[in-house]
Amino acid sequence: MTHKHGGDIYNYQDIKDFSANINFLGMPRAVRTAAIRAVDESIHYPDPECRSLRAALVQREKSFCSDILPEHIICGNGAAELIFALAGAWQPERALIVAPSFYEYEQALYVSGCEITRFVLDPEEHFCLGDSFVSAAASFVANDAFADDTRIKEGSYCETFSKGFSANRRSMIILGNPNNPTGALIERKILEKLICLCEKYHILLVLDESFLDFLDTDDQKRTYSGAVKILGNPNLFVIRSFTKIYALPGIRFGYGLSSDRDLLERMRMLIQPWNVSLIAQKAAEAAASEYEFVRNSAKMISLNRDHLIRALRDCGLTVFPSAANFLLVRGPKNLKEACLENGILIRDCSNFPGLEPTGDGQGFFRVCVRSREENDELVGIIRECMNSR
Amino acid sequence: MTHKHGGDIYNYQDIKDFSANINFLGMPRAVRTAAIRAVDESIHYPDPECRSLRAALVQREKSFCSDILPEHIICGNGAAELIFALAGAWQPERALIVAPSFYEYEQALYVSGCEITRFVLDPEEHFCLGDSFVSAAASFVANDAFADDTRIKEGSYCETFSKGFSANRRSMIILGNPNNPTGALIERKILEKLICLCEKYHILLVLDESFLDFLDTDDQKRTYSGAVKILGNPNLFVIRSFTKIYALPGIRFGYGLSSDRDLLERMRMLIQPWNVSLIAQKAAEAAASEYEFVRNSAKMISLNRDHLIRALRDCGLTVFPSAANFLLVRGPKNLKEACLENGILIRDCSNFPGLEPTGDGQGFFRVCVRSREENDELVGIIRECMNSR
Repeated sequence: MTHKHGGDIYNYQDIKDFSANINFLGMPRAVRTAAIRAVDESIHYPDPECRSLRAALVQREKSFCSDILPEHIICGNGAAELIFALAGAWQPERALIVAPSFYEYEQALYVSGCEITRFVLDPEEHFCLGDSFVSAAASFVANDAFADDTRIKEGSYCETFSKGFSANRRSMIILGNPNNPTGALIERKILEKLICLCEKYHILLVLDESFLDFLDTDDQKRTYSGAVKILGNPNLFVIRSFTKIYALPGIRFGYGLSSDRDLLERMRMLIQPWNVSLIAQKAAEAAASEYEFVRNSAKMISLNRDHLIRALRDCGLTVFPSAANFLLVRGPKNLKEACLENGILIRDCSNFPGLEPTGDGQGFFRVCVRSREENDELVGIIRECMNSR
Repeated sequence: MTHKHGGDIYNYQDIKDFSANINFLGMPRAVRTAAIRAVDESIHYPDPECRSLRAALVQREKSFCSDILPEHIICGNGAAELIFALAGAWQPERALIVAPSFYEYEQALYVSGCEITRFVLDPEEHFCLGDSFVSAAASFVANDAFADDTRIKEGSYCETFSKGFSANRRSMIILGNPNNPTGALIERKILEKLICLCEKYHILLVLDESFLDFLDTDDQKRTYSGAVKILGNPNLFVIRSFTKIYALPGIRFGYGLSSDRDLLERMRMLIQPWNVSLIAQKAAEAAASEYEFVRNSAKMISLNRDHLIRALRDCGLTVFPSAANFLLVRGPKNLKEACLENGILIRDCSNFPGLEPTGDGQGFFRVCVRSREENDELVGIIRECMNSR
């Protein structure tokens, strides 16, 4: 099996890449400088314990959770490494994920030998997680099938499992917030219910917040992040990524937050000691204090996103609401090819479970929100494609 | 459990590091340039398939095996990542390793849930693998205990298992060649026997050749490498590292060679798609063609090693023969502290199984072979320490 992802600039040379979800502003200057300096230091091994970096991350997390300590943090060679280590260390017997979502959740669970249940999100509901998902999660916890009649109404979902619930099977739920490739944010009310449910029944709830930094304001980030609930709740695991917001996918860095020290220790045992390169440690340490860069990026991308949504809708595409730096759109099946002919790469989403092409000649695509000029170029090409049909 | 390794310059600042086994000549200039250039490219994802890099590695392997293809190569975030992926993908039920050897073999096997058998090497035999190890491996294959009477004489070891052998349990043998921390090379005759044994009985033989590039001549490398036997023998896996010879432990790169495509595919499934950073891919691609650098390094290190061995023996230390860029020595228990007081870090080996301190006040230490001047400084300090006893 070959991995198929966005950002495959290696198959397509000299192309404008709208397929990868990377901050179009690029790497902060201080991060670039730190990475270049670190090349000369790379004749030494990196610190296996990432001590200096974790101290910087504790500072970064202060606005979410003032009591986070270095020992609650695990560093990864990108967030993706941590997803695989989590599946390996927690060894779930079954897991609940949504479709569509980041493909690596499923792959990591699959190789850990886990039974996977997919909750297929509804395009009519903008792929948002609502109370129907909470009910499904409740059924999952109770080990029931997803029959409609087992769905429980809002407010009453917790009681159902006090009897009949079997905690014998280790279970895990993984959700992206915002989700990839949809950009949909999980409402705080829904999030609270899921956290409460998983805590009560010892289900590991993994929140992948790799795109949370693109939310418009710091207040919003605090509202939607699970990090505020990490301490005292060992059933919650939060994943963060530096790849997207600081535009360093080629350097690789992500980290995890948990108050379950045994779980973190088991993850560390599964990963080689020098997983985070010295260059990644130095670049990430420099990035951790780039607060203004993050705020400015989020603000600019939010403006460009609103503009791009309107323009793409004007072209006749269906555009789904997004809180991230990318948009999921629905349009003619040949949209990727039409863009490619004009030197632009977008992400064909037909290999995402839940986004398979339908019989009506339509397909799903993901486009990154870039600069106003670049977005306009994309819109021009898409408009032409739509008009020529 | 905390990882304890050489190269811990993060606990000891402003120190001359003899504890890490890195080429003292540093990174080749072209590698440094490629790494620095790659920082600006790191706003893109790395190629998950390392296509360009694997093409360069095929060229590099030509002198070992002219028919190696890109699909026989798997790239890792350092060689260590591949060891963990191998244990996870092969899922051995039992494994045979030697003690002392690289600690990560045991850790990777341990977390994969494997039963581990240690063959304790004899300091009297310079920690070399001889026919007694071949016999032990034969007993291991036959599922017998390591009783002396089950050892089979040279030349006859293959017959014993034609009857009574049970292939029910998946088995693995991992050996470093040269071995770390001893520097001992496995004789070609012994290697041939082990390769034949493992091939016949479908035991996966993993040869970690991370330090093979330090052998004096290209002919020697060909003589002692398992790579020449890779094609057509799916029971052999060779690991190489760029970390040591090209001095890039902070960038991380290693690769594996195998003709078992299913095994390679299972390993890839266990590892995230973007495990080798873009910087590591570009640096490694530049390193792959640095043939003269490797030859010159090996030559110079060989001279410096011979000189250092004589000098340390003159001081009264026991020095074991080594084919690598480091030496295992035996000396007074306080040797590390004495060096530290003088600003030099050496590797205390007391946490290696097989090198535990004995009751006679002696301990094992590993020192890197560095420049003539640096080595002389080390010798001066050790001489003083030995004289003051």
